[in-house]
Amino acid sequence: MIVVMRPDATREQVDDVCRRVREMGLRDQPIAGSDLWVIAAIGEDRKKDPDVFEHVPGVERAIRVLAPYKLASRKDPDSATAVAIGPDWATGGDTGVAVVAGPCSVESRDQILESARRAQAAGAVGLRGGAFKPRTNPYSFQGLGKEGLELLGEARAVTGLAVITEVLAPADVDLVSGYADCLQVGARNAQNFRLLDAVGRSGKPVLLKRGMSMTVEETLQAAEYVLAAGNPNVVICERGVRTFEAHARNTLSLSAAVELKQRSHLPVWVDPSQGTGHAHLVPAMCRAAVAAGIDGLLIEMHPDPAHALTDGAQSITPDTLDELMPLLARLAEATGRSLQGVRSG
Amino acid sequence: MIVVMRPDATREQVDDVCRRVREMGLRDQPIAGSDLWVIAAIGEDRKKDPDVFEHVPGVERAIRVLAPYKLASRKDPDSATAVAIGPDWATGGDTGVAVVAGPCSVESRDQILESARRAQAAGAVGLRGGAFKPRTNPYSFQGLGKEGLELLGEARAVTGLAVITEVLAPADVDLVSGYADCLQVGARNAQNFRLLDAVGRSGKPVLLKRGMSMTVEETLQAAEYVLAAGNPNVVICERGVRTFEAHARNTLSLSAAVELKQRSHLPVWVDPSQGTGHAHLVPAMCRAAVAAGIDGLLIEMHPDPAHALTDGAQSITPDTLDELMPLLARLAEATGRSLQGVRSG
Amino acid sequence: MIVVMRPDATREQVDDVCRRVREMGLRDQPIAGSDLWVIAAIGEDRKKDPDVFEHVPGVERAIRVLAPYKLASRKDPDSATAVAIGPDWATGGDTGVAVVAGPCSVESRDQILESARRAQAAGAVGLRGGAFKPRTNPYSFQGLGKEGLELLGEARAVTGLAVITEVLAPADVDLVSGYADCLQVGARNAQNFRLLDAVGRSGKPVLLKRGMSMTVEETLQAAEYVLAAGNPNVVICERGVRTFEAHARNTLSLSAAVELKQRSHLPVWVDPSQGTGHAHLVPAMCRAAVAAGIDGLLIEMHPDPAHALTDGAQSITPDTLDELMPLLARLAEATGRSLQGVRSG
Amino acid sequence: MIVVMRPDATREQVDDVCRRVREMGLRDQPIAGSDLWVIAAIGEDRKKDPDVFEHVPGVERAIRVLAPYKLASRKDPDSATAVAIGPDWATGGDTGVAVVAGPCSVESRDQILESARRAQAAGAVGLRGGAFKPRTNPYSFQGLGKEGLELLGEARAVTGLAVITEVLAPADVDLVSGYADCLQVGARNAQNFRLLDAVGRSGKPVLLKRGMSMTVEETLQAAEYVLAAGNPNVVICERGVRTFEAHARNTLSLSAAVELKQRSHLPVWVDPSQGTGHAHLVPAMCRAAVAAGIDGLLIEMHPDPAHALTDGAQSITPDTLDELMPLLARLAEATGRSLQGVRSG
Repeated sequence: MIVVMRPDATREQVDDVCRRVREMGLRDQPIAGSDLWVIAAIGEDRKKDPDVFEHVPGVERAIRVLAPYKLASRKDPDSATAVAIGPDWATGGDTGVAVVAGPCSVESRDQILESARRAQAAGAVGLRGGAFKPRTNPYSFQGLGKEGLELLGEARAVTGLAVITEVLAPADVDLVSGYADCLQVGARNAQNFRLLDAVGRSGKPVLLKRGMSMTVEETLQAAEYVLAAGNPNVVICERGVRTFEAHARNTLSLSAAVELKQRSHLPVWVDPSQGTGHAHLVPAMCRAAVAAGIDGLLIEMHPDPAHALTDGAQSITPDTLDELMPLLARLAEATGRSLQGVRSG
Repeated sequence: MIVVMRPDATREQVDDVCRRVREMGLRDQPIAGSDLWVIAAIGEDRKKDPDVFEHVPGVERAIRVLAPYKLASRKDPDSATAVAIGPDWATGGDTGVAVVAGPCSVESRDQILESARRAQAAGAVGLRGGAFKPRTNPYSFQGLGKEGLELLGEARAVTGLAVITEVLAPADVDLVSGYADCLQVGARNAQNFRLLDAVGRSGKPVLLKRGMSMTVEETLQAAEYVLAAGNPNVVICERGVRTFEAHARNTLSLSAAVELKQRSHLPVWVDPSQGTGHAHLVPAMCRAAVAAGIDGLLIEMHPDPAHALTDGAQSITPDTLDELMPLLARLAEATGRSLQGVRSG
Repeated sequence: MIVVMRPDATREQVDDVCRRVREMGLRDQPIAGSDLWVIAAIGEDRKKDPDVFEHVPGVERAIRVLAPYKLASRKDPDSATAVAIGPDWATGGDTGVAVVAGPCSVESRDQILESARRAQAAGAVGLRGGAFKPRTNPYSFQGLGKEGLELLGEARAVTGLAVITEVLAPADVDLVSGYADCLQVGARNAQNFRLLDAVGRSGKPVLLKRGMSMTVEETLQAAEYVLAAGNPNVVICERGVRTFEAHARNTLSLSAAVELKQRSHLPVWVDPSQGTGHAHLVPAMCRAAVAAGIDGLLIEMHPDPAHALTDGAQSITPDTLDELMPLLARLAEATGRSLQGVRSG
Repeated sequence: MIVVMRPDATREQVDDVCRRVREMGLRDQPIAGSDLWVIAAIGEDRKKDPDVFEHVPGVERAIRVLAPYKLASRKDPDSATAVAIGPDWATGGDTGVAVVAGPCSVESRDQILESARRAQAAGAVGLRGGAFKPRTNPYSFQGLGKEGLELLGEARAVTGLAVITEVLAPADVDLVSGYADCLQVGARNAQNFRLLDAVGRSGKPVLLKRGMSMTVEETLQAAEYVLAAGNPNVVICERGVRTFEAHARNTLSLSAAVELKQRSHLPVWVDPSQGTGHAHLVPAMCRAAVAAGIDGLLIEMHPDPAHALTDGAQSITPDTLDELMPLLARLAEATGRSLQGVRSG
């Protein structure tokens, strides 16, 4: 940690800061500048909060030097973790790009089975679909609940696709784990620390969406909660952040996805559907994400978007997915990678 | 709802939209403009999602007309609800401005009792303090838990102050309700809909913090969750939003607080501590909030901010609170109101 | 400046950074931490760009220690500059709160004279009104130009009010200076550095609006441009920033205004009209700004907002101003100050 | 335009709005809903400001239906304009992806000639470099001015590369036009309407950077200023927007670039250097932008970034560009396009 003193700080104030640094278990090294003093606080500062110095007389500010996460951080440029999702495939490391597609919500048996068949036919390796839906409005459709999970289980049995579905509360983790290959923690719960702890203790693969106003550093700390609970199977998913931009529901930040991959060994996915909110922007953002080097895509696809109960505006059709997949395969190959389950032919 | 067609929409597409409007249980009224068609969808559209039209061929966009919340909305300009917090006082309606102060976290018996005594001496009507802390970093202090609740209970017994403390998970609602006069739902959980439902079913007064990237409309819908679960005792609290601004931890949006009061009959409070992140900005923002007409303030105050375990940088000292309260009372009186428990002298 | 090395930096890289620090004319002081090296670069670093180190091998990041502005910074807590606006009054320092009101645009002789008379009657000390309008849309009304300036001059002659009006381009500075007591630089031009330089060389008082996505630090650097060109008469005006918030045109950041006052000796004003975009929010934000301690208010007021050519939605009526001014005077007095030209009695 | 009345609006208020609509030269069509009235205002509303209704009694809100730009809008899905930049190449329409590279600032004869040679060798079709620099800090290097332009002219003569360079003020347009093939209007001047008008009257190709807090719609209106002044040669450039994200200098919004291309027939470029602020993110964002379908890239490249006078942190090296170009060519080909001047081999 570095503590910068104000230009008018007294020598007593400098000494006081040095004493506090030692009280924190760190070694103090004061440096006299031309205009002001700086005190280096040497030692493991990951668990120390630099903000405590803001109230100390004479202090201008204090700056942490080490990143505030450890298990999530990438140790060396070549280390990358592959997380197995279900029995058939894994993501991250040197695996190919994975595509998981499906509707926002499970609405009916026909709808989810049709979605699963079309996802599989297009070459996707997983099926998404929400049984428990976090809805802004209390009067909106909240998902089919357990019935939805059972339908997902049936779709998995029929197609063999891995199932990714959202869990909303610690009390539901066991139930959802019985049907899902991967537990999704949504953007609105990305700092629901009790839920992070619960999915961490479950050991199931977790797809953690970045919250809509979380920084890269905070996202890695949310992942650290899951890792610290003993679960190494974490996939981070960029899904756009909230900005002033009005043309899209969120501003998809592909540079954040790239930065997450650079700082962490964990797989990083992109959700272009939540990330834009409009189906007409989804294919271009899928292409961009693959070219940028991400590990997987979580795409909303609905057999009949115009009649979807939720998020129809951002769902692409199965036909659009059919057209998109070979293109994504070509882009993956152009950058020396592959698309799992699809040949660019 | 209003559905605007694209200029190049065909007559068939207009007819198709009219049919869909009728399928939704609304009455369709198509209007031919000079360049394009507009279809008015007449009826209760609060539970209809205008986004479903985005995928319908020929549609430019659809716009909801009614606000998507009902219980939270203000029916007429003079209606305002007073919510009783504990046996001695209420907030909202024509009550005076309430000040609740205390540390970010309960750290020890001495610390919380000293905080309570100083809050009471300054004229505050409630004590804040977290026993369960939502922390960005898994390695940071997470609160004293049940022991913290017991200390809050003791501080209440000694001073008679009402206690406001945070609840993090549905499973904790009963426990926390045993010690708190008012349950706080924090910004990171403001769209944790299961928790909103659980505090709604508890019937306890709820102080709902606005999430750091939630709009006014979304905040009112979060309040609607609690109200719809049968709990009319909701206080909304503005605590700043996340922006590019670097001088403060959050950008406190007093205009959002004023807008919330205009749209809703519920009491609206302001948290100037989370709202700025810096103790030196807190007194000015307290003054501003009172002058703007808000119903209450939630202020972080610590007997020794420089040694606080959490949020020391944004905690004011008891002495600062002592100086501030008479000033707030004068400002309240200048606008025809009063400060509960304090006379401006 | 502080240069933080990566944990895996080599001793050669540390030496290389030290050499570069010396090349910049600063003194290097390397410090060995437990995990990494830090190099303090000692000397006047205000004109040095820490970003140059980002490309240097082994560097994690570099942090500037001194604020990047000098003339605009407050030297000691009690120093504050009063800027004279016209012959009759000044703002900042220990002067009372100044209110300047008037329409967004000068539209006609009747409109501006009526506005001036009503502003004066309410107790305002200045008249605002745009003759050159920066409009987002090229087809919108762009202002009356020179004719508008002449009408402002007439309004000033009739009422004695000081005139504040916007200048859009360096080539117009002389022309506008002939009619204005204070040149306004608008938010969209707040980093039009040629214009800042031109108004700086004019010597006229300048009201500099903060840009809609400028930080406090960048705003002070924009002010520094004017000061560095030899013009000490700068007033900074907060007018809201652009965020995701949809209920208001901008998010008025009163904490930024307070922070500007703490960091700078210059007067700081608030524009609650641009700052919210809605007349119904303006009175509350005026009250809040005065209670927060700002030096002046720039308020859009129009005799007939529903027929205004520009910004009618955010213009209050003269009657609203009449009601507001005594209230603002009481709030100023409650905080030990006064409202120029108005008695709270 | 659609005017939505409040539920409690009276019949007189509805009639009053209808009268105002007719006064605006539009045709009124009132529609009675179950809860409220809606008035359709039919006719060319592009130049009408819906905000004028906000002050009219009984009005809830008014919504514009037509986009507020005309010349910039795409008439049909297949129309796209190619803009010639210099004698040798054009951008937009069905041309290949263009890459323009070079330093942030022209610093010296050696530096700019070396940059030009390396850009050319890598396959770039243009050279960027600033002679007039808009700097946040008045004490920072402001560019070499006319000398810088002359050096750019020499680099053009030597290599044949087209030159893109920034113009800061209307008074400089003629001077800069004498040396540049394309005038750049920077993000800070993107709503400097006098400058937009001046470059519009020059007839020179204009690369218009999106402002850091401008929406897609506002960006198209800024382009409309140039087009409306008679200059059809406009290229729009996305360069990131300002958000809370701290890992990057700006948040590059590729979805905004895609949306701009969908709404407009003009060429759309991306600046990944300003758009991220960090050289390590630039190659991935170049790849993503090409895969997303943009028309060109403006890349900061410096022969010695660690000694650059400006923006070294975001400048890639010539070697990095050499590696990147074939990859971009492969990505362009994977999507059925090409990279101008480069073969993917």
